[in-house]
Amino acid sequence: MIGIFDSGIGGLTVVKAIMEQLPEYDIAYFGDTARTPYGSKSADTVAGYAAENTEFLLSKGARVIVVACNSASSVAMERLHKAYDGPIFEVITPAVEMAVAASAKHRIGVIGTRATVNSGIYTREILKCTPAAKVYSEACPLLVPLVEEGWLKKPETRMIVKKYLLPLKVRQVDTLILGCTHYPLLKTIIQAKIGKRVKIIDSSVAVAGKVRQFMDQQPEIAEAMAKNGRARFFVSDVTAQFEKIARFLLKKDINLTHVAL
Amino acid sequence: MIGIFDSGIGGLTVVKAIMEQLPEYDIAYFGDTARTPYGSKSADTVAGYAAENTEFLLSKGARVIVVACNSASSVAMERLHKAYDGPIFEVITPAVEMAVAASAKHRIGVIGTRATVNSGIYTREILKCTPAAKVYSEACPLLVPLVEEGWLKKPETRMIVKKYLLPLKVRQVDTLILGCTHYPLLKTIIQAKIGKRVKIIDSSVAVAGKVRQFMDQQPEIAEAMAKNGRARFFVSDVTAQFEKIARFLLKKDINLTHVAL
Repeated sequence: MIGIFDSGIGGLTVVKAIMEQLPEYDIAYFGDTARTPYGSKSADTVAGYAAENTEFLLSKGARVIVVACNSASSVAMERLHKAYDGPIFEVITPAVEMAVAASAKHRIGVIGTRATVNSGIYTREILKCTPAAKVYSEACPLLVPLVEEGWLKKPETRMIVKKYLLPLKVRQVDTLILGCTHYPLLKTIIQAKIGKRVKIIDSSVAVAGKVRQFMDQQPEIAEAMAKNGRARFFVSDVTAQFEKIARFLLKKDINLTHVAL
Repeated sequence: MIGIFDSGIGGLTVVKAIMEQLPEYDIAYFGDTARTPYGSKSADTVAGYAAENTEFLLSKGARVIVVACNSASSVAMERLHKAYDGPIFEVITPAVEMAVAASAKHRIGVIGTRATVNSGIYTREILKCTPAAKVYSEACPLLVPLVEEGWLKKPETRMIVKKYLLPLKVRQVDTLILGCTHYPLLKTIIQAKIGKRVKIIDSSVAVAGKVRQFMDQQPEIAEAMAKNGRARFFVSDVTAQFEKIARFLLKKDINLTHVAL
């Protein structure tokens, strides 16, 4: 099956995108709700958590791993590739490729957690593809708690989004990468505040496209995967918020299994 | 020495109060910044963390433990008393006693994290003291991230505080307990939004008073404690935010030691 993990609920946007693009594949999701958020933690700590999460998903039968968390994708991939030699997808490269293809003026904005923005990974990866690009990044640490509270349309959320996006608007970016898997839940507000002509790149959709492409190109792996369209959800802490947001996002009830890592 | 722990930076308000009321005592502080926040986690998970934190502080030579976290105080005391038979202080009872003494109309408001408010502990403890009291509680889950971002005076913070306090204002509380050790950092805004005639009870100051009273009453314990006025700070994850807020609050530089629990 496809194993997907995130620090908490954000990765559910990746689950949704994978369910849409690869509906027949079985999925195991692990949300590290006991240790959320990753975005304010140091690189070492996050890489250690990511390794444990991957090991857990492999133990549940996952053969393809999707790191559905930008903070972990930005600091943990080297460590994960050392620990597992099967296919591991992260959310950054697919979003970068999509952004570079979409941007006409090569003025690209990136928003993410403090860990992701401090790592500088989006800037580096964009410049690898397009050395002449201008990349402007903003850490938006309050957006994750706002999403986790379900404050998706409140005026306070609009104000905070506006404040965070102002420096990118001033720089006249023509493309904006949502560099955190929580942010697609605020896409409508983000689009309104950054301006309707700016193209928004959703890393959840981008990584799901990559996984689909991989399955098309590797039929021997694709054929060996379980395809009952089933999804299992594991969390390190059971909270009402997780169930509420999962139901809202996936439009169905889910069963949560608690695991202690 | 006096061992103090919290999920992260909030307990520094307790450190500050203890430094003011018991300046000669040595302090060891543990901030569980890798596993913060506790307020959105389940009771079992928080109690487990609290037990580990207490064990760590005892291993560093602490003989008196202060649980400087309302979420942990509300769910972990039974477990901690089983594990350690020395003096353990929590932040709830001292605040309740202070509030009950201060409230003329016995209309008491409580604000805290979701874990603290859901536990119902403030209501139960207030009603034990004053069965006729009216207690109104509001969970304010976004205040911890706002404080941790250092957004102590921003208009968005004012709006969010106002929204959270409105139901308590409508109920005409005459006393308001800050049931989270982060909240004293927002005291000015909270006082402005709840109204200047409402008495604000700061659990950090309340617990420091209890520890001082205990030392006065137990001279044999007080005499055996180290009194060089030194403070050591341990964290489970080193972040720039912790140092920044500690410097702001304690008005001095501190050295952080990283420990993995």
